[in-house]
Amino acid sequence: MKTTIKEETDVKLESPILIEGLPGLGMVGRIAVRYIVKQLNAQQLGLLYSPYFPYYVVVNKKGRVRLLRGEFHYWRNQGGSDLILFTGDSQAQTVEGQYEIAEAILDFAKKQKASAIITLGGYRKEAGESPKVVATASDESILRKAIEADALPSPPGNPIVGTAGLLVGMARFQKLPALCLLGETRGYLPDPKAAKSLLIVLQKMLGIPLSLDDIEKEIEKSDGILERMQAIEARRETYTKKMRKGEEDKTTYIS
Amino acid sequence: MKTTIKEETDVKLESPILIEGLPGLGMVGRIAVRYIVKQLNAQQLGLLYSPYFPYYVVVNKKGRVRLLRGEFHYWRNQGGSDLILFTGDSQAQTVEGQYEIAEAILDFAKKQKASAIITLGGYRKEAGESPKVVATASDESILRKAIEADALPSPPGNPIVGTAGLLVGMARFQKLPALCLLGETRGYLPDPKAAKSLLIVLQKMLGIPLSLDDIEKEIEKSDGILERMQAIEARRETYTKKMRKGEEDKTTYIS
Amino acid sequence: MKTTIKEETDVKLESPILIEGLPGLGMVGRIAVRYIVKQLNAQQLGLLYSPYFPYYVVVNKKGRVRLLRGEFHYWRNQGGSDLILFTGDSQAQTVEGQYEIAEAILDFAKKQKASAIITLGGYRKEAGESPKVVATASDESILRKAIEADALPSPPGNPIVGTAGLLVGMARFQKLPALCLLGETRGYLPDPKAAKSLLIVLQKMLGIPLSLDDIEKEIEKSDGILERMQAIEARRETYTKKMRKGEEDKTTYIS
Amino acid sequence: MKTTIKEETDVKLESPILIEGLPGLGMVGRIAVRYIVKQLNAQQLGLLYSPYFPYYVVVNKKGRVRLLRGEFHYWRNQGGSDLILFTGDSQAQTVEGQYEIAEAILDFAKKQKASAIITLGGYRKEAGESPKVVATASDESILRKAIEADALPSPPGNPIVGTAGLLVGMARFQKLPALCLLGETRGYLPDPKAAKSLLIVLQKMLGIPLSLDDIEKEIEKSDGILERMQAIEARRETYTKKMRKGEEDKTTYIS
Repeated sequence: MKTTIKEETDVKLESPILIEGLPGLGMVGRIAVRYIVKQLNAQQLGLLYSPYFPYYVVVNKKGRVRLLRGEFHYWRNQGGSDLILFTGDSQAQTVEGQYEIAEAILDFAKKQKASAIITLGGYRKEAGESPKVVATASDESILRKAIEADALPSPPGNPIVGTAGLLVGMARFQKLPALCLLGETRGYLPDPKAAKSLLIVLQKMLGIPLSLDDIEKEIEKSDGILERMQAIEARRETYTKKMRKGEEDKTTYIS
Repeated sequence: MKTTIKEETDVKLESPILIEGLPGLGMVGRIAVRYIVKQLNAQQLGLLYSPYFPYYVVVNKKGRVRLLRGEFHYWRNQGGSDLILFTGDSQAQTVEGQYEIAEAILDFAKKQKASAIITLGGYRKEAGESPKVVATASDESILRKAIEADALPSPPGNPIVGTAGLLVGMARFQKLPALCLLGETRGYLPDPKAAKSLLIVLQKMLGIPLSLDDIEKEIEKSDGILERMQAIEARRETYTKKMRKGEEDKTTYIS
Repeated sequence: MKTTIKEETDVKLESPILIEGLPGLGMVGRIAVRYIVKQLNAQQLGLLYSPYFPYYVVVNKKGRVRLLRGEFHYWRNQGGSDLILFTGDSQAQTVEGQYEIAEAILDFAKKQKASAIITLGGYRKEAGESPKVVATASDESILRKAIEADALPSPPGNPIVGTAGLLVGMARFQKLPALCLLGETRGYLPDPKAAKSLLIVLQKMLGIPLSLDDIEKEIEKSDGILERMQAIEARRETYTKKMRKGEEDKTTYIS
Repeated sequence: MKTTIKEETDVKLESPILIEGLPGLGMVGRIAVRYIVKQLNAQQLGLLYSPYFPYYVVVNKKGRVRLLRGEFHYWRNQGGSDLILFTGDSQAQTVEGQYEIAEAILDFAKKQKASAIITLGGYRKEAGESPKVVATASDESILRKAIEADALPSPPGNPIVGTAGLLVGMARFQKLPALCLLGETRGYLPDPKAAKSLLIVLQKMLGIPLSLDDIEKEIEKSDGILERMQAIEARRETYTKKMRKGEEDKTTYIS
């Protein structure tokens, strides 16, 4: 088995922009791409299978089995470029697999006459209420558009690991302009807040009609989880301190 | 060396069902397939060799050496579908190897004009006297047949690791319906009781004339081993407690 | 780079027997093959290079660099079958590499019209003055010859790891009879005594005129090393006991 | 994706000598090659990409992303052989990758009609003010030239790991003379002093007009870093001793 893409339709798109977001730091890229697919009601375009994904299958709600895979959806944009949206279950499991999957995505983008690539991911940082978005690119002009949409230029020296990085690095072989947007995240938990920051930049850049109401609900839910975890942690610390104090007290009595 | 299947006969089978069970959790799948091969006196059909099996050979009772391998047997069913039975010494050792071996098995199934795939394995759970069997499938109709034969639908989200999972996930590429049956097992030791549960479901589904007397004997033997191990463990604990009590007693005398 | 064999001469051999011994347990196989090459003044036949050998080079006595490799030598036998002798610097470093190198050796054996394969290695056991040799084979007739030359049949279930095992397991694909001889060794140190046991069996089987005087000298040297190591170990133990006794004495005085 | 070299110009060179220095012990080879490129103002010749490099990309000063890669530069030498200079971001990440990249470099050298290969690296040793340079080679005549330029013959048995070793070992397949020069280094930190020793030997061997003023500055800087690190370490030790003494003092008062 080779890495292969099974096309599910022969729709013809108008110089689409391919947006990628696979699982990674804070699941930021994946959350953002899945959100766009759902909000725009994007249609399935193709499935990517690879022997470099982990060797297990998952069972869905109907008791049906499926391989781990990547999914391409498309959305026809009346007011601008069409979109191809790519996400999936997993990153590749080996060095060569990482390069092979990135190459397969770019070949597919070329075949679909894509005009640009945008990859999404997370950037480790203690982020506040509105996490920033940093941008890097294969060329000046696409980077400028991201900056105009309020992304910040990435500091140099910063390595970008996995498919989000390799796609931008390899895009030049297909003569495609490519941009990488990374949302600041602590990265411990799935982070819809960082994903929202990416969505705001994408909205501005691409003029896509994206409501952010639903992601606000996800953020509330995830803040709730975080608060409960912090409360548990705080209680644990108080308890530990009390215990220690108790020990010290005892020690005092005894000695 | 590539993964290859050496055919040992050119028998023509009638839309056979391929049943797979490789070593895995509790050795459940392998025990079940080997049991069917023996009970039905199934004949050798072919051997699968792969550079993804571990790099050692085994010595048999006659002092003869053989590579690790997979084995296909066949059985002509007067009252229904013929069977192809696949088991082997080992799972593949790398990610790509797992996909390559699953693909080779499916190619062979297609060549033999198989009508369906059934994979067998274990499912980790504290299981009682009659361990349950959970089922997942590539399509609705084969799943329904398993449910009618008293398998339970698998809960969603459950990953199925290795060849038993990949075969069902990849069967769609060959347009073959595929079913995975997993017997509940604690998974510590080879578990013939879980294998028996699978055999009962298979009997009902496929109408194969399978006596279960011999597996009852294996279960008794394995229960005997388990009891002895538990007795040893209990003695060890009693002894440890006694020792500790002794220490405490001493401590009491001394202090 | 693929695994390749560079032939150094176009000599035509008469149904040669290929004897293999790579580094492994106690270095037994490698010591034996190198000894035969030296004693018979065997000539270079070819070199095997592979990307599955470790990725470093070694510097020889003249300050010259060479890749890790396998070496084929040949010896013309007036009174019987010619010999091809194979040894090398290393085993392959990956699962697939192990199979690929074994396959390359067998292809080369076939090309040289080899009549049989004999692989040599070590077998972990506390061995006495004359370590035994156990034999396993791909077929009955070659195994019988080894037994007649005082090898013992191997117990079943015994895994044979690496090239010595795979060559015998894969020899059937080339329709070559193949034998594996394993000398008993503790395996901690290079073990010329176990290698000598292999040489005695080979002498009887193949009627090759092999003096064993030089290997006796190697055995003496290696016994000397072993004795010195055991003396150091014994002193260390005596010292440790004395120290502990001291502690106990102190404990006695104090309590 | 395969390991590939993208040529950036179709310049024709006169029997160039290829000098390689990738990251390794003390970064010695890479520092030396980068220094030569800068000093001679060498021009870009080609870029090597490989799926065996790590799977991340780096961001440069302009916020632009690029894949990890190897870089070939060339320099036209009026008074002698032209040079091809090769360095890069990383060594290959797998065994086979190491061999594949070395082979790609040699194929490219052959295509450029190279007359020799010189590889540079570090050699672990407590080195003094002028670290020595040891030399090994694929043949006598190129080794002699290095010795005449004050390199020392390498002691035998010394393994040379990675591309610097494999290129010399594999050069014979292309019938290219090849030399490996290793500068003594402690290897903990990037070591421009060891790199300078290599540059002095190369200057003598190849007659290239190389000023060493700038590397002197790098050495001063790196000596400064080392001194500061040693000072920190010394303070830490003093502090630790004081603390311990304090504890002992306390213990004295209390007991």
